[in-house]
Amino acid sequence: MSFDGFSNEGLAKSISLTISSLKQSYTADEISPIDVVTAIIEELKSHRDDGIWTYRVPPEELRSRATTLQNHPSPEQLPLWGIPFSVKDCIDIAGLPTSAGCPEFAYTAERTNPVVQKLLDAGAMLIGKTNLDQFATGLVGIRTGYDRPHNAFDANYIPGGSSSGAALSVALGLVSFAVGTDTGGSGRVPAGFNNIVGLKPTRGVLSTAHTVEACKTLDCLSIFSLTARDAQTVFDIVKGVNAKGGNKKGSNLSHPFSRPVEKPTARRAGYQQGQSFCFGVPQPRQRAFFGNAGAKENYEEAIKALEQLGGTSVEIDYRPFLEANELLFNGPWVAERYASVGAFVEKHSADVFPITREIILSAKERTAVEAFEGFYSVERLKHSTQPLWEEIDFLVVPTTGTIYRIEEVEADPLRLNANLGYYTNFVNLLDLCAIALPNGFQTNGLPTGITFIAPPHSESYLVDIGAAFHPARCRQLGATAFKL
Amino acid sequence: MSFDGFSNEGLAKSISLTISSLKQSYTADEISPIDVVTAIIEELKSHRDDGIWTYRVPPEELRSRATTLQNHPSPEQLPLWGIPFSVKDCIDIAGLPTSAGCPEFAYTAERTNPVVQKLLDAGAMLIGKTNLDQFATGLVGIRTGYDRPHNAFDANYIPGGSSSGAALSVALGLVSFAVGTDTGGSGRVPAGFNNIVGLKPTRGVLSTAHTVEACKTLDCLSIFSLTARDAQTVFDIVKGVNAKGGNKKGSNLSHPFSRPVEKPTARRAGYQQGQSFCFGVPQPRQRAFFGNAGAKENYEEAIKALEQLGGTSVEIDYRPFLEANELLFNGPWVAERYASVGAFVEKHSADVFPITREIILSAKERTAVEAFEGFYSVERLKHSTQPLWEEIDFLVVPTTGTIYRIEEVEADPLRLNANLGYYTNFVNLLDLCAIALPNGFQTNGLPTGITFIAPPHSESYLVDIGAAFHPARCRQLGATAFKL
Repeated sequence: MSFDGFSNEGLAKSISLTISSLKQSYTADEISPIDVVTAIIEELKSHRDDGIWTYRVPPEELRSRATTLQNHPSPEQLPLWGIPFSVKDCIDIAGLPTSAGCPEFAYTAERTNPVVQKLLDAGAMLIGKTNLDQFATGLVGIRTGYDRPHNAFDANYIPGGSSSGAALSVALGLVSFAVGTDTGGSGRVPAGFNNIVGLKPTRGVLSTAHTVEACKTLDCLSIFSLTARDAQTVFDIVKGVNAKGGNKKGSNLSHPFSRPVEKPTARRAGYQQGQSFCFGVPQPRQRAFFGNAGAKENYEEAIKALEQLGGTSVEIDYRPFLEANELLFNGPWVAERYASVGAFVEKHSADVFPITREIILSAKERTAVEAFEGFYSVERLKHSTQPLWEEIDFLVVPTTGTIYRIEEVEADPLRLNANLGYYTNFVNLLDLCAIALPNGFQTNGLPTGITFIAPPHSESYLVDIGAAFHPARCRQLGATAFKL
Repeated sequence: MSFDGFSNEGLAKSISLTISSLKQSYTADEISPIDVVTAIIEELKSHRDDGIWTYRVPPEELRSRATTLQNHPSPEQLPLWGIPFSVKDCIDIAGLPTSAGCPEFAYTAERTNPVVQKLLDAGAMLIGKTNLDQFATGLVGIRTGYDRPHNAFDANYIPGGSSSGAALSVALGLVSFAVGTDTGGSGRVPAGFNNIVGLKPTRGVLSTAHTVEACKTLDCLSIFSLTARDAQTVFDIVKGVNAKGGNKKGSNLSHPFSRPVEKPTARRAGYQQGQSFCFGVPQPRQRAFFGNAGAKENYEEAIKALEQLGGTSVEIDYRPFLEANELLFNGPWVAERYASVGAFVEKHSADVFPITREIILSAKERTAVEAFEGFYSVERLKHSTQPLWEEIDFLVVPTTGTIYRIEEVEADPLRLNANLGYYTNFVNLLDLCAIALPNGFQTNGLPTGITFIAPPHSESYLVDIGAAFHPARCRQLGATAFKL
């Protein structure tokens, strides 16, 4: 591999790909979809072996798609007209390979995931499919059978995962947004490590039909973008359970684990700048930064920034969330990974990333009694944390306590991976939604992230708060040359 | 054991214990709570060894309770003032033993289940605790370490279970209503076998706190009564998740598996006599009566009676429900029974009813992968049956396809027990509610039952339909001398 760092030249410097600015440029006729794909095609030449992509749409197809869009009779009806995006490679797109990060596992998909279909129908331009921790198992981003991806700011560091390629494609200005997935943090950790936004919606509101499942009962599709508003734009288009319109409660659910979009609670109906709010933070002794003083400092700065926006912080007991983390990491849910890809792993043992194989095969030891006891624990924890959500509007945690070098993770893969889930693992188990946002840089030039967490169906509220918070802590968009 | 059939004399002939008639008699001052407990105390003398009770409130305590109620300053504020009831002996009442049908398992409860507490607070008079299939495992009613109960109409036949004593206490006119439980049919099968009503509410709306759990994720408390309206009266008093008032969504949930009462869908908001409705019936070849022609005939008569009430029958595909039955009976949910009482069964193997022990210990073989695959199947079946509930208002099935003699069950306990769940097992797995109602007698004098099943939160609708249907098919109340 010849990769030695990103240039921060080219597209990332020439065209701002935020959805809002791109739409503005399109409306003002300053630029066309053909211009955008031409720039992307050129830029992708320097991303051949950096581990971002598992599949790239061929240049002639990109040009053809852009031309078709330009000739569309009513582009104003396509809310994502000419907006480039990528899709994590555990999500099916009919006719394209799905590898889940394991080349030997790859198959040609026969169906398209409904969320991706809605994006295509809305005029978005697919650039390619992105690399990941194999079978979406990991938070490091480097457990892949393809070229190994690196952090957008320092190639010695991990990009975060499992949606590593997805986050990089956005951070490096190669697409406007990316579709990822998030079971235990895969849609947040790589956002934090690459200075972008990661929206992890309520479980079930983005259909997981036609995906390679990690934990079927927990998996979410997630959205990576350069700004919180861009995430909202995409979310509003793809949310809901039926690709062909209609989101009536109880009807036309497209997948057994889909559920209808519901109104948020009144207190989380929306946020307007200046409005007061109340946010929870773990008690200081319950915070973990794993020795990273810079990350700790940035977290404390974020709390101050929220207070300046009108927030009141409340120290909460983080223990129930840690207990839920433990359940996800060391509990019976790993059996879902075996239920999904165990047969392949058994049969093609040598083709699977060793640590991933070890994790998935460990699931065979788990009993049904343990599985049920796990659910009881989750219900108990949901129940015991319920009063908290009547006291605070949302919970504020670092996206991760620290970041690691690739060589550190290679030396101690399980423990360091677990550390990265300290603030993320519990979210889907406890049926919460979350947004990860940039939270400024450490002195070594690496970004840190902050995550806001709230009860289901609070996405818009979190985006509103996030959009107000983001410029207070970070103006640089991803690893691009553009500013918020 | 000296038991050889019920007398059908005494209380069952002297005072009608329907809640409505008892309240009327109280209001008219024709009778007092002391009169009622005196009659019950007298009557209970002839029920010493018939297996209905595991615990009887001593006569002096009954008299004292009745006296206290008579001296209550404002009895009109107690909606169940002077109404006698029983509680299945897997439900805790502080200070009383809870045996779950296994004498060696019995412990003195420290807390009172919230539903029972609400009944006591409403002025109801506890008569005793009732026998059951040990650990609520079975639909036959005779798997108990206490005296064996018999059918109220023929002592050679099973009473049905697991809530055998509960149903008998109502059918024989010893109480006005009984609190039972229902995981796979325990609140419906014994209602059908003893000519009474069994309301199996939506999962979670009656708190299962302080009970010996069968399958914690599925268990429901259920109500046995002589009429559908009586079941509604009790249900309205005990529903909701907080004993101390308040049922605000998301607040004060008293148990991790509690959930708030919700409004039914518009089409199931209520039924008034003459109103048209649409009910589903299994396709004829999917109906199973296990050779019982009389039961088949009665089922067909019930369909006609519903049509005469304004109903239109629609033949539906019963296969998904059979698939769910199979999951409950042969799938991973048995692991919940092990999670609940497995440690006791392991340690006190000789004290447990043999078939119950065998069933519970078999759970150890089940894997977590099987458990998750079971949930996937349930979600898939819920999803695939969802459109059905937009086509029909409710589903109509026999409560059971047939009934068995005690000796038949002893000879072939597992298979015959499974047959009894053909129309009941799936209901809680698929998150439905149900009401079992009398459906007339066979030529051998044994009763048959009918069950109406609908989506969650449709209890009142099912009661309305049930109240209209009941007199069309059966006027005798339970095994008493009273008529509807």
